Amino acid sequence: MKKVSVGVDIGGTNTAIGVVDELGHVLTKDSIATPNHGDINLYIDELAASINNLISNAKLLNEDLEILGVGIGAPNGNYYKGTIEYAPNLSFKGIVSLVDMLKSRFNGIKAVALTNDANAAAIGEMMYGGAKDMKNFAMYTLGTGVGSGLVVNGDLVYGNDGFAGECGHTTLIPGGRLCGCGAEGHLEAYCSAPGMKRTAFELLVKYNATDSLLADKSFNELNSKMIYEAAIKGDKIAKEVFDITGQYLGQGLADTVHHISPEAIFLFGGPLAAGDLILEPTRKSFEAHLLPIFKDKIQILPSKLNAGDAAIVGASALVLKELEK
Amino acid sequence: MKKVSVGVDIGGTNTAIGVVDELGHVLTKDSIATPNHGDINLYIDELAASINNLISNAKLLNEDLEILGVGIGAPNGNYYKGTIEYAPNLSFKGIVSLVDMLKSRFNGIKAVALTNDANAAAIGEMMYGGAKDMKNFAMYTLGTGVGSGLVVNGDLVYGNDGFAGECGHTTLIPGGRLCGCGAEGHLEAYCSAPGMKRTAFELLVKYNATDSLLADKSFNELNSKMIYEAAIKGDKIAKEVFDITGQYLGQGLADTVHHISPEAIFLFGGPLAAGDLILEPTRKSFEAHLLPIFKDKIQILPSKLNAGDAAIVGASALVLKELEK
Repeated sequence: MKKVSVGVDIGGTNTAIGVVDELGHVLTKDSIATPNHGDINLYIDELAASINNLISNAKLLNEDLEILGVGIGAPNGNYYKGTIEYAPNLSFKGIVSLVDMLKSRFNGIKAVALTNDANAAAIGEMMYGGAKDMKNFAMYTLGTGVGSGLVVNGDLVYGNDGFAGECGHTTLIPGGRLCGCGAEGHLEAYCSAPGMKRTAFELLVKYNATDSLLADKSFNELNSKMIYEAAIKGDKIAKEVFDITGQYLGQGLADTVHHISPEAIFLFGGPLAAGDLILEPTRKSFEAHLLPIFKDKIQILPSKLNAGDAAIVGASALVLKELEK
Repeated sequence: MKKVSVGVDIGGTNTAIGVVDELGHVLTKDSIATPNHGDINLYIDELAASINNLISNAKLLNEDLEILGVGIGAPNGNYYKGTIEYAPNLSFKGIVSLVDMLKSRFNGIKAVALTNDANAAAIGEMMYGGAKDMKNFAMYTLGTGVGSGLVVNGDLVYGNDGFAGECGHTTLIPGGRLCGCGAEGHLEAYCSAPGMKRTAFELLVKYNATDSLLADKSFNELNSKMIYEAAIKGDKIAKEVFDITGQYLGQGLADTVHHISPEAIFLFGGPLAAGDLILEPTRKSFEAHLLPIFKDKIQILPSKLNAGDAAIVGASALVLKELEK
């Protein structure tokens, strides 16, 4: 009997769904639109239909399949309540009891669990990735925002209300850049992809760098991929963006060490494609901010999850973690 | 049968020892000098003698006494190994296996455990203080330094190496004040008692405040108690010191929320004697730095431990926590 879980990743635009085996391999997958308006019940119906369809397809490939459950990663996902609460980038307003709504559409599925997307990635790293043998680690996901998941003693930290692990909102620069959440100087405003773009324009301004490869793009056009491409062509501004982003990020990662003293911190997301361009300045700044007792013993590592499937795989891993209990 | 534990608090100058009952009441207590040089074995002998002596005294008061164990709080205490490692303010150099050394001097005592002093305070708060019914909380101790202890799911967070919970060394101001640990801008350099003194002199300089009550003290004379006394007399500089300290502290406490999402954060130490003078600006800054999802739901509370006995009581509580396992 082959045991599989369903992973669901709810993003602002699309919802990705996959059937994942116990080694973290995606057997079948699908994607539906995350609605930007309308009746949430219709979306849940469509999601349930897609899950059933994928399970049927997976059974065509392997008749002897046991479905362990459904794991869901979603922005502002609350593990304790199975809800999505006030997610700024989703059309679902207020508090949505997603787990209950989905459960009512299935019979005989043991576990349906939900957490935020970065927590799901951390669990994926623990179950299938580079943190397999680790009991204490952190995961930072760098993208449109910066998410994080913390693991202490082998368990994800959910905190008192289910929302722990929002390290993208620690303060790096008091009174600094406006963060999407309304506060000032949060890590996300510096180390997300849009944060890197903001840094690029800050440097264009500082040096009046009309000869930079980045100087011909508008504020709305420029993205972190363009900065990466300019950096590998040797563009000074683009390279300095990575240096400064790493400097900021290293400061934030050190704060996490001073809280939970992990064995390693994993980094996931687009900016990691730049490899040492981002990792080297991050590690250097990280070490400089640490209490001596922590220096030279905590690894900063790129995630070992496959970038394309990580969100689905992470969400599916939530089921395995549930069944451990 | 009355059950008691022995609490030992190793400070830079003195080692306080007490026999504590299960309600957190100190039955008998003693103090010996923490040596500033010499053979550590002599110190351990003296510590063991003092513990035996206190137990005998306690038995005079109550014949029917069961000794559950010895709990020790010490700077740079490592819970996993029972060691004190490279403590900057102690004369014990390198790594000292304190638990093993002490165990070899006792027969029949079930538990001997050690952790750092702020962790011990957090356990004390959980066992005897304001966090009795809490599973997720943080404790910050403000004194010569700033220590912290984090509790997640009812357990103290020790991390990969036993040294977790050093929130006094999170970075508040990149490139800011030199911290005692050698790094720049750490919370401890702003929110400890010496940090408050540094802020006072910064303000004297800023306003050229020759008429302040603090203006007649040297840098080495001024202490946080004098700042408090000046503040309650209405001294503007002294009051602003509390405002600014609260501003810094609130920023740091918010970082802790973004990591572990606690139900409450407890504050302990001398500066808390100032009450709302420090608590109000702390809470205001705290809320301003939080992600909306955390706003208006996390309490910042003064510790409910008795200031005089807190270190002993906290250390003794470590034994109760051990025996729960």
